[in-house]
Amino acid sequence: MDYNKKALALHKKHKGKIEIVSKVPLKSKHDLATIYTPGVGAVSMAIYKDKKKTWQLTNRGNQVAIVTDGSSVLGLGNLGPEAAMPVMEGKVVIFKKFANIDAVPLCVNTTDTEEIIKFCRQIEPSFAGINLEDISAPRCFEILERLEKELSIPVFHDDQDGTAIIVLAALINACRASNKAMKELKIVISGAGSAGIAIAKLLLSQKIADIILADSRGIIYQGRQNLNSVKISISKKTNKRKLKGMLADALAGADVFIGVSKPNLVNEKMVKSMNKNPIIFAMANPVPEIMPKIALKAGACIVGTGRSDFPNQINNALVFPGIFRGLIDNGIKNITEKMKISISLAIAYSIKPAKNKILPSIFSKKIVKVIVKSLK
Amino acid sequence: MDYNKKALALHKKHKGKIEIVSKVPLKSKHDLATIYTPGVGAVSMAIYKDKKKTWQLTNRGNQVAIVTDGSSVLGLGNLGPEAAMPVMEGKVVIFKKFANIDAVPLCVNTTDTEEIIKFCRQIEPSFAGINLEDISAPRCFEILERLEKELSIPVFHDDQDGTAIIVLAALINACRASNKAMKELKIVISGAGSAGIAIAKLLLSQKIADIILADSRGIIYQGRQNLNSVKISISKKTNKRKLKGMLADALAGADVFIGVSKPNLVNEKMVKSMNKNPIIFAMANPVPEIMPKIALKAGACIVGTGRSDFPNQINNALVFPGIFRGLIDNGIKNITEKMKISISLAIAYSIKPAKNKILPSIFSKKIVKVIVKSLK
Repeated sequence: MDYNKKALALHKKHKGKIEIVSKVPLKSKHDLATIYTPGVGAVSMAIYKDKKKTWQLTNRGNQVAIVTDGSSVLGLGNLGPEAAMPVMEGKVVIFKKFANIDAVPLCVNTTDTEEIIKFCRQIEPSFAGINLEDISAPRCFEILERLEKELSIPVFHDDQDGTAIIVLAALINACRASNKAMKELKIVISGAGSAGIAIAKLLLSQKIADIILADSRGIIYQGRQNLNSVKISISKKTNKRKLKGMLADALAGADVFIGVSKPNLVNEKMVKSMNKNPIIFAMANPVPEIMPKIALKAGACIVGTGRSDFPNQINNALVFPGIFRGLIDNGIKNITEKMKISISLAIAYSIKPAKNKILPSIFSKKIVKVIVKSLK
Repeated sequence: MDYNKKALALHKKHKGKIEIVSKVPLKSKHDLATIYTPGVGAVSMAIYKDKKKTWQLTNRGNQVAIVTDGSSVLGLGNLGPEAAMPVMEGKVVIFKKFANIDAVPLCVNTTDTEEIIKFCRQIEPSFAGINLEDISAPRCFEILERLEKELSIPVFHDDQDGTAIIVLAALINACRASNKAMKELKIVISGAGSAGIAIAKLLLSQKIADIILADSRGIIYQGRQNLNSVKISISKKTNKRKLKGMLADALAGADVFIGVSKPNLVNEKMVKSMNKNPIIFAMANPVPEIMPKIALKAGACIVGTGRSDFPNQINNALVFPGIFRGLIDNGIKNITEKMKISISLAIAYSIKPAKNKILPSIFSKKIVKVIVKSLK
């Protein structure tokens, strides 16, 4: 199936994927006088007198802004705000379908950290939460951290925490399905951007024996050149064996490969160099680090990708609708590490895993409820 | 009918008035692979390679941002961004119902001119146009002027041009229905904010004999104290008789009252002091400068208000959906004075006016088409 061709045709036919509609009737002057002037004046005055009524009398309480600068669109890189829109519209559709959340895609033409922070502060009165999206590292770390402190509504960066949560859930179930002990694993993470760093941090909380990160320049170790502050920080907590070299050097003897990097970085030989029955999560989008067929042929025990058209999709799309539903409905301001682990566990234990089904389907009707419940 | 009570109940029941939905199906992994990863990657790449495709492959081409700081909500004043939302959601419903435009309400928590301009620049890649709304004068003038120059998409301030266009249309038909010659009229405009100034400017283009503006401090004349730069400029072009005094002084002997100011500023006596069979447009929202019953009793020939629940509604809601449809569909960047007059004439001559029906109904199916055609 050529999804590229199909997607281009569909987007052209419909001119994008979303629309903004009314949930009240407008058929008569009577309706107009109720939803607009004069009646609406009383609604505005009620909120003016008590700002909390914004949550009861407008759609704000169900409304999430998806904010991106288009600097890291899927695994495709810095494509800019216009080119980011199809992905954001896709997220809008997913938000509505799975969690009945009304999301607004805002692709902004600034990549300046302070300007993006200010932008989010400015739109705060219109939204229940902000979903940062496809903002490149290391800016995304400061932006998220600052906004978590400065805003009164939850802010969540899907590519960081969303991806980390789903990877942990997938790893829990990959271990269950292959009888591996998670704490004893040697794990290699390819990519030290927003997702790679967040995954490493969450896995560190699980006391996993051996975690090594690699970026485009190779293995990250303490004291290496060309490390930004976030990578310096993670270099102190990972790679206990102080390994140096390239990705292939890290993979030799490893149990798990987690890729959030670039297409085709891993080949058959590298998989064969890993420990027996390795777990391969090749999540670069849209083209994975290694295609599942090749990884399986090379001896992989369990293979997952970020894509919808292969088995074992490991994509934050499974978690962000439920997380926002849970944050909003439970009035949670900031998501903690404990909450992240709870969500991962709840997702993992919502199914009996098999090697070709380590995660529930995104179409599972209960998954949003499972996540919301885990946040209570 | 107590529209305040009805409006409060409706907004509470539905938690606001809008929702954001998909216009494509999402029922299978196959759909997901088409609207999201991997297929969506090809759509993003197509736009990255040719930015113009943003108009064909996303909803941007049908998407308008409604931007407000809540500093001048209806006639209710500076209520802030949260309290502005019900009005903005009302506009979203009107946009969709009458012009099938997808509007996004963005109520921002800054009233700084430069910050609002920057905000609009930042969201430009996501929208086909920007509808500034309920931003108080004189900031609104600079914001609009600057954005018209700095952005590549149309920017329209409803409270300025939208109101001016509908007032001119109403005045044309009030004259037709009452056999008055427009150029010979003595007109008093109460309110010299965004709407009052824009109305005065558009009426000046019609070579009307005598136009006087009054603000909360009384009649505006050249050399008066307490005039901002916009009022100084208009003081040089209006009030040729160099009248001083309060609103009541201006109304004595006038033919037309146009109110875009505050509730209950005009009484029976003031209407009686006007020339015979005066025209009264009392458009303060939600409570007009004088209630229609009182104005008619005092001898008014034609009375209009901004409200949906009285005859002769004079509200920019009749024009903004059609104007944006026309700007977008005809690829027009800035709206000129000539275009404004064309629209007013087209609206006016789309009906045979009567004293209690000087404008077409907002529910008229042809009105958007009439406006779009006038912009060709």
